Amino acid sequence: MTANDTAVGAAQSQQVSNTISLPADEAKATPAPPPATPSHPLGPITAAEITQSSGLIKAFWPEGTDCHFKGITLLEPTKAELAPYLAAERAGQTPFPIDRRSFVIYYFRGTDNLHEAVINLTKNTVESNVKLGPFLHPNADGDEIIAVEKALLAHPEVQAEIVKLKLPEGTVLVSDPWIYGSDGLKDGKFYDDKRLMQCYLYMRDPSNSSEADSCHYAFPLPISPVIDPATMELVRIDILPTGLDEKLKPLEPWKPVKGNEYIPEAQTLRTDLKPLRVEQPEGASFTVEDFSELGRLIKWQKWDFKVGFNSREGMILYDVHYDNKPLFYRLSLSDMSIPYADPRTPYHRKAAFDLGDAGAGIMANNLQLGCDCLGSIYYISSVLADAEGKPVNMPNVVCVHEQDAGIGWKHTNYRTNRAVVVRNRELVLQTILTVSNYEYILAFIFNTAGDITYEARATGILSTSPVDVDLTETPHPYGTIVHPGVLASFHQHFFSLRIDPMIAGHGNSIAYDEAYALPRDPKLNPHGTGYTIRKTKIDTSGGFDLDPSKNRTFKIINESVKNTVNGSPVGYKVMVPPVQPILADKDSFHYKRAEFADRTFYVTKYSEGELYSGGKYTNQSRGGTGVRSWADRKDSLEGGDPVLWVNFGINHIPRVEDFPVMPVETLRVMLRPVNFFDKNPALDVPPSTQSFNCSVGLNKPEDLGEKVEAPTLGGEGGKLAPCCGGH
Amino acid sequence: MTANDTAVGAAQSQQVSNTISLPADEAKATPAPPPATPSHPLGPITAAEITQSSGLIKAFWPEGTDCHFKGITLLEPTKAELAPYLAAERAGQTPFPIDRRSFVIYYFRGTDNLHEAVINLTKNTVESNVKLGPFLHPNADGDEIIAVEKALLAHPEVQAEIVKLKLPEGTVLVSDPWIYGSDGLKDGKFYDDKRLMQCYLYMRDPSNSSEADSCHYAFPLPISPVIDPATMELVRIDILPTGLDEKLKPLEPWKPVKGNEYIPEAQTLRTDLKPLRVEQPEGASFTVEDFSELGRLIKWQKWDFKVGFNSREGMILYDVHYDNKPLFYRLSLSDMSIPYADPRTPYHRKAAFDLGDAGAGIMANNLQLGCDCLGSIYYISSVLADAEGKPVNMPNVVCVHEQDAGIGWKHTNYRTNRAVVVRNRELVLQTILTVSNYEYILAFIFNTAGDITYEARATGILSTSPVDVDLTETPHPYGTIVHPGVLASFHQHFFSLRIDPMIAGHGNSIAYDEAYALPRDPKLNPHGTGYTIRKTKIDTSGGFDLDPSKNRTFKIINESVKNTVNGSPVGYKVMVPPVQPILADKDSFHYKRAEFADRTFYVTKYSEGELYSGGKYTNQSRGGTGVRSWADRKDSLEGGDPVLWVNFGINHIPRVEDFPVMPVETLRVMLRPVNFFDKNPALDVPPSTQSFNCSVGLNKPEDLGEKVEAPTLGGEGGKLAPCCGGH
Repeated sequence: MTANDTAVGAAQSQQVSNTISLPADEAKATPAPPPATPSHPLGPITAAEITQSSGLIKAFWPEGTDCHFKGITLLEPTKAELAPYLAAERAGQTPFPIDRRSFVIYYFRGTDNLHEAVINLTKNTVESNVKLGPFLHPNADGDEIIAVEKALLAHPEVQAEIVKLKLPEGTVLVSDPWIYGSDGLKDGKFYDDKRLMQCYLYMRDPSNSSEADSCHYAFPLPISPVIDPATMELVRIDILPTGLDEKLKPLEPWKPVKGNEYIPEAQTLRTDLKPLRVEQPEGASFTVEDFSELGRLIKWQKWDFKVGFNSREGMILYDVHYDNKPLFYRLSLSDMSIPYADPRTPYHRKAAFDLGDAGAGIMANNLQLGCDCLGSIYYISSVLADAEGKPVNMPNVVCVHEQDAGIGWKHTNYRTNRAVVVRNRELVLQTILTVSNYEYILAFIFNTAGDITYEARATGILSTSPVDVDLTETPHPYGTIVHPGVLASFHQHFFSLRIDPMIAGHGNSIAYDEAYALPRDPKLNPHGTGYTIRKTKIDTSGGFDLDPSKNRTFKIINESVKNTVNGSPVGYKVMVPPVQPILADKDSFHYKRAEFADRTFYVTKYSEGELYSGGKYTNQSRGGTGVRSWADRKDSLEGGDPVLWVNFGINHIPRVEDFPVMPVETLRVMLRPVNFFDKNPALDVPPSTQSFNCSVGLNKPEDLGEKVEAPTLGGEGGKLAPCCGGH
Repeated sequence: MTANDTAVGAAQSQQVSNTISLPADEAKATPAPPPATPSHPLGPITAAEITQSSGLIKAFWPEGTDCHFKGITLLEPTKAELAPYLAAERAGQTPFPIDRRSFVIYYFRGTDNLHEAVINLTKNTVESNVKLGPFLHPNADGDEIIAVEKALLAHPEVQAEIVKLKLPEGTVLVSDPWIYGSDGLKDGKFYDDKRLMQCYLYMRDPSNSSEADSCHYAFPLPISPVIDPATMELVRIDILPTGLDEKLKPLEPWKPVKGNEYIPEAQTLRTDLKPLRVEQPEGASFTVEDFSELGRLIKWQKWDFKVGFNSREGMILYDVHYDNKPLFYRLSLSDMSIPYADPRTPYHRKAAFDLGDAGAGIMANNLQLGCDCLGSIYYISSVLADAEGKPVNMPNVVCVHEQDAGIGWKHTNYRTNRAVVVRNRELVLQTILTVSNYEYILAFIFNTAGDITYEARATGILSTSPVDVDLTETPHPYGTIVHPGVLASFHQHFFSLRIDPMIAGHGNSIAYDEAYALPRDPKLNPHGTGYTIRKTKIDTSGGFDLDPSKNRTFKIINESVKNTVNGSPVGYKVMVPPVQPILADKDSFHYKRAEFADRTFYVTKYSEGELYSGGKYTNQSRGGTGVRSWADRKDSLEGGDPVLWVNFGINHIPRVEDFPVMPVETLRVMLRPVNFFDKNPALDVPPSTQSFNCSVGLNKPEDLGEKVEAPTLGGEGGKLAPCCGGH
């Protein structure tokens, strides 16, 4: 082995060739024997496995090598191995065992030499250990962000700029470090492909500096330091434009404005909201079993699925079945992109990939009983790795609970007045990410009619920019002024849901239906009222859009399995709201990088490792490694193993009401059976009855209409039949 | 007065000139003096006023004239009178009194001579009494529908056709009489403008004939009698096509198929759904006051509004304010249209206007405690008129209750780990219509962030048609086969919400914003990432569409009132999902009649009496009297009194899962403040706490993650701050 990497400090680095499999005895200082392997290939990585993985990596290098771990995650088995495993398991057979593996991303601390390694946990070996090209960057991490904030605020050059603002005595500065983004430019010492961080500066309300949760976004400052997070070196300081155009002006004394706090102590709280509680006196209807130390198998109302969790994707669902019928192999959020649209330097680089740049698992909130989730709640916890390669407990990252969502179905025969009604009971799995300023509340929601909804709610705080106070009432070309001195620029939010289907088993196709008016015809359509449906099958990978003018409806179908009533191929349709495609032009890095933000659907042929629609390494990426590029391969989908990427989002034109914290904006993608079942699958839900639901009437007894037995339209003798049995 | 109408039976009819005001002493047999006037011009019509109205009409005509009443409803005052009334009332002043009036539609029984009258209830006079042209028809009514069903099933010619089907002994036939629709054709004795009813024939499951709620839609029969409901005369019998094209074949013996029941006795019910109850131990947060005998003023979380109810529109909201700031003058569903797309005779006439042809009030369900509404429920009841002009109690037609809709907003400062979270509490006003086979669950939903949502859920039963059993597995060009022998044809559902706004007071405009990518420019947009917003004000009445490719967002604004933060005109935006416009071609009656079904928005200049977007009389209408025609006047909207008609719906391609009852399909229109408030209006909602919400943890104590105080990313020393005060 030759040593031609630049040594950093005392560490010696070694050139590694592309793929190395080290037998256990060649590894230096082999760590302690691994703990008993968790029982399932899909089990989330355990604390012991995290320790084992980082130990093996550290042992690979000379003693004392300071590894900065960016991720230690489960490397899921290939579909070729796993699909038969799951089928055998379900059939009660003994599956062929699959080795567990972890995937490790790490640096040598202080360098940008990113490494990827695969650990075979079962065999306790390093299967591969690869140094990546110089300009691939992984996610930021929490420790790093905090260290960057500390370092830049202490930097004398930064302080020298701050002094020009003549802030009040005792003002506490705050910084939101951001990933640097991309623009292909060289600036000073570095090209934009050197891993850097651009930092936005704010302050706590100067009149309330001791309040650690003062909403600093109400006080954006026009100073943006750029830092090298590997060395904490200050690269430069960008001054931000605060007028209506790109011109910069010299820093001037801050003009006092008041704050805008979201903490309850700063509000005159409403006093008239009465409690509303959800009670399940007999417990919840779902069951939870451990399929591994951290993996949970959930069963509810004919649904069963496994829940996993990892640092990047957060919550994942595997092997989703309804009534033991296979539906979805894997469901996950594959990334999010939030490109900002203030065209002025340096905002052109403001674009975040919240999974690739940060991590839905890392950023997941610890959900608090009674605050985040209402009713009878089961929590799923996780374990992730910190920068030292040590396990960190992540308590309560997913909450599981039922909820009532109104009426599920109803019919009243007007001749008898007999109403039959069932309620729409749902099962919710929810997780919440905090990505610096913003929050995203993400949930998979199941109901009793065979539907799965993926719901995303955007909340938290706008990422604000400074604007001159005297422009407060001027319409701004690039955003909305939400507070004096505070500009919230226009931006878009894109979510990309990855659906790996197995509707009625593996071997699916993607198709879409469109409704076409029939032409007038004296025999076939004499009155011009007719329309029919045309189906188009998607044979080749590519990108696709909605078209409401044709009612274009995308479906995942299994052409080998026919509906028992009408012979249609069984299927599930995808109902997704439209969003304006990414507005940044095709030559921009915003566009090139956010490969899922230009089409509502991408369909690709399944390929191992293609999990993240923005590409594997989004931090300061260039594009070319995500779903648009995979789709451009124009693979044939005849093999029946498509992956569907469903992209949706918000064009966020901020409103004053979105500040200082945004009321949720909710998006839903719904997966609904289409000619999969032989009738309404919720027919067997017991009718909604008062004895079961125990509602309370608020009318005074003499007003309570239900006691009035006046004749109503229809019915025999006008008697009101009870809507439900056994009152 | 001359008598030149054709006498019907013993009744003498009199020619009336267009507008007659009869002083009280000229009316024959003046009824008893009216009861004390209800105290409010918007109070729903009372039982006494219904009696008074029908009494005055009957007294107008010779004794014994058999009046068939089709509607006796409140005639709301003009805006010129009412708006100042409401403003004065709100200001605590004594408003100038407004006479109460009713609007009466009636026939002489057995004729089609439709009359409209206006009664001045305050003065006890008939202000006008007009015979309409021969071909205007009002809604069907329940008594009539039941009478038609009885008559046609007993008719010997109908029975002679049924005999050809050789149905099993004891089979019970059922008919769904439908409004006739329009096609401009003459058929035998009558043009299609003679009021007729086309009736679909079904049967109860022959193996279960005694079950009064057998799902007859599983047994559609190819016999469709056409009846004159005025005389109960059988006009003709249409035979329905049962193949794949328009060809008819002679009736043949019924081929047995099994049924498809929705009643719970026919199911093997699930046994594992545990109860879920909503408890409000301190009662609900809303208050209800009577503003008239039947009118309810509701106050909740800074919202206040009046609720009315009438036979056609069902539930209406008036004078909606938030924190005493005016927002909406009147909110109502203005009609619905369900045009069917099977082009074959006679289905080309199958199109229902559920409000104009039936009536959302007439068809409103009696909501049952614990079945239809969950939690702590207040009911609003109503009184409508029957065909004899007598009042009929309509108990529990609207239910009012709170519900929890998840998190309302949240932010966690990652530096301190302090989470601030509030829940999204909503107030729901819900009503359910049964229109023969279908149900629609309609609700106005308010939340604490200034939003109003109008939610429509479609459920109930598809209106089915017969198809040959041997075609069950053949793809059908005009629908989906949902059961052997049962075709559910393609059709569309269109809803039209009428919004009469007063955002920040009367004097509003309608505008839309679109987002446009900025062109590349070395100074202004050097990286191609920028976009900006262009606003277009709507100056002239017309129809408008969504355009997601531009993020076209429609807003109601008040240009005289500026946002206190950024000077924008205050406004509310309308978020509405797209639907495929009506597919029937422009020359078809479907298209001509459903004037709201081709555009997402219509904007008209306010004009008294323009309440129903399909026109006043939709039954067998021709078009030309609805919102498209009003918009075509191209009125200037400069006067600041626009009415916004928001049209949305479903292109219903039926699925097997929609049968025998359809799981709800849900549509939502959301009205959200845009730069109306000076910050998030829900900031003062108290934080969500466990002590308030009393959730229950389902994990075993040793697993309950929240007790783990392991370090988490960020925070000082890793301690988890409680998310909420006072645990």
